[in-house]
Amino acid sequence: MSVSRPSALLVFLLLLVGCSQRGFDPVAEGEKLLRRDTEWADLASAGKDVEKIVWYWTDDAVLIFPGQPVLEGKAAIRAYVAQSLNTPGFRIHWVSEKPVFSPDGKLAYMRGKNELTAPGPNGAPTTVHLRGISIWRLDADGQWRCVVDISNEEPPAAPVPK
Amino acid sequence: MSVSRPSALLVFLLLLVGCSQRGFDPVAEGEKLLRRDTEWADLASAGKDVEKIVWYWTDDAVLIFPGQPVLEGKAAIRAYVAQSLNTPGFRIHWVSEKPVFSPDGKLAYMRGKNELTAPGPNGAPTTVHLRGISIWRLDADGQWRCVVDISNEEPPAAPVPK
Repeated sequence: MSVSRPSALLVFLLLLVGCSQRGFDPVAEGEKLLRRDTEWADLASAGKDVEKIVWYWTDDAVLIFPGQPVLEGKAAIRAYVAQSLNTPGFRIHWVSEKPVFSPDGKLAYMRGKNELTAPGPNGAPTTVHLRGISIWRLDADGQWRCVVDISNEEPPAAPVPK
Repeated sequence: MSVSRPSALLVFLLLLVGCSQRGFDPVAEGEKLLRRDTEWADLASAGKDVEKIVWYWTDDAVLIFPGQPVLEGKAAIRAYVAQSLNTPGFRIHWVSEKPVFSPDGKLAYMRGKNELTAPGPNGAPTTVHLRGISIWRLDADGQWRCVVDISNEEPPAAPVPK
């Protein structure tokens, strides 16, 4: 019966592997997610590469911007990004903070502040200050991607985001 | 060595219990969460009981309404709800849909549509149509509570939510 103890050990190890996702470190993972978000914001701010920017959203991502039709899915998002980058004077940048994770470390959300400049109704550049929530999912390929992006306007007297 | 097989079984069972949260049923839990949200919307719509309405938010909940200062925490939320219910003509109702869960079933988000009537700048009742995202957390007492609530305006021509 010398097989029994090794088999107990094997069962233990197999289940430990199965449960290993619980050992995730929210502080380290939060820093990783914020770094990823900063990379993304910098790419969007540079405004050059539609595919690289779009890569950070999941295939089924949903974008809910104030007063605009909801954008659902990568094709709609790609078209929106391409159109924005083709708009003279368009510029966007955001900063996120305080990621919060599900206990298994596979879903997260963050608050963010967003500064967006685009031609206003009279053609002159208009800057709006938004704040919002992004929800992130650990995708099947092990990459964090944004699955929901929603924002609204700051109160009129709000300070400019840093 | 007759102890070895039972001990393997014991290790297996203990770890299985440890992993049991993975066996959660997203369809059943989604229906439960939508029922809870409907109860909440009905209470808010009735507009009578501040404490019952406020119960559905976590103690650290964050409310981000368009153009308004962010409300953080139960005290700020309670004051907002009490003030709203004391405003003649105030009425709110919402409907949520499509809950999405983290794999462990402990964090969720839903889309929703919100109809809000309140006195406008000239005192006449004004109704706005919002859509948004609510994020829910399975609190330590085993109850789902809303931890983030954010919305923005529908496009001008949007149909009235059902």
